[in-house]
Amino acid sequence: MIIDTNDLKILDISMPITYSMPVYKGKEFKRPIISIDGDFSTGSAYETRLELNLHTGTHLDTPKHMIPYGYTLEELELSKVITKCRVLDLTDVKEKITDKDLIRFDIKEGEFILLKTKNSFEDILENDFIYVDKDGAEYLSKLKIKGVGIDSLGIERAQPNHETHISLFNSDVMILEGLMLKDIEEDEYLLSAAPIYIPGAEAAPVRAYLMK
Amino acid sequence: MIIDTNDLKILDISMPITYSMPVYKGKEFKRPIISIDGDFSTGSAYETRLELNLHTGTHLDTPKHMIPYGYTLEELELSKVITKCRVLDLTDVKEKITDKDLIRFDIKEGEFILLKTKNSFEDILENDFIYVDKDGAEYLSKLKIKGVGIDSLGIERAQPNHETHISLFNSDVMILEGLMLKDIEEDEYLLSAAPIYIPGAEAAPVRAYLMK
Repeated sequence: MIIDTNDLKILDISMPITYSMPVYKGKEFKRPIISIDGDFSTGSAYETRLELNLHTGTHLDTPKHMIPYGYTLEELELSKVITKCRVLDLTDVKEKITDKDLIRFDIKEGEFILLKTKNSFEDILENDFIYVDKDGAEYLSKLKIKGVGIDSLGIERAQPNHETHISLFNSDVMILEGLMLKDIEEDEYLLSAAPIYIPGAEAAPVRAYLMK
Repeated sequence: MIIDTNDLKILDISMPITYSMPVYKGKEFKRPIISIDGDFSTGSAYETRLELNLHTGTHLDTPKHMIPYGYTLEELELSKVITKCRVLDLTDVKEKITDKDLIRFDIKEGEFILLKTKNSFEDILENDFIYVDKDGAEYLSKLKIKGVGIDSLGIERAQPNHETHISLFNSDVMILEGLMLKDIEEDEYLLSAAPIYIPGAEAAPVRAYLMK
């Protein structure tokens, strides 16, 4: 793919970070706390302070999230998350994405895929969101894809043993969560999903966007 | 500039976020606090929590930082910070960057420039860092550049009235602070400096990188 910087189309796919944003399963500790360190009533500058769980909003996970000796952000090569990607339209899926839903897309080794589902359209992000089930994750892991992004705050749901995350991590598949894909058409793009750099952390917020 | 995604060279220019990182003037409230929301001793997932002043580390400022009715992040167009840029070698500057230091670079309207100084090489970030003085800022403002980045945690120093910030903000010049430019050669690049998206905030952390 060739990108001409004089004719760059940039598509934001990130979730706004606010106190009232949707958070994973509605858990209170996932809610960001935004406060003021200084304003014009007390000084000559305005400064905001942010406190958040690193899995809030649009973010990238690394294996340490679910695997005790998994790697963390300082081992992430940026070329893994700044890369060609393909958006797949799975808006017809009712509950969860399985291998049977994915097979029709002819996904190839090394691809980074973004799963557009009805999460991007309906108010289901905190509870009944569409997710990738164990079989779907194993299918992607066996294909050795580079990464998978989804428009839910978790790529799995109702899996006490975290089979979806662990299958993907074991195949070193990048996991990008909390995307907003409502206005994004099924197509190829250049993805930029570089997490803010916190050495030792198992995840970090990302301002994810697509370029065309 | 043409970018071929099959031959992408990505250069990270972001500062690691850690408790012991350099912070503006060594102020304690600028130091990030990293804690654990859950780990494998209490559950089946590892989750980190981050608390930080939004001007810590590599970040983008918007006018609200210094101007009471200045705009905040929701009004930022990403095309202002994902754009062609030019790195200028100012490593010979001793204390501050003035108009006289900048004139030799023949800076043009609409350019985004990154100032590489001895901040990238010496342990001076918390106190005696190189900054842009009022005359330097006015020179850039009059040229109507698109943005300016610097390898210090503040683009100004010892200016109680914030002339440098205010002059740049009044001309809608983007201000990017906390870059790491030690290994970056004077040249043109595609800059990606998209801040995490916190509506209403006057700044936000950025995973800034260059593409070639």
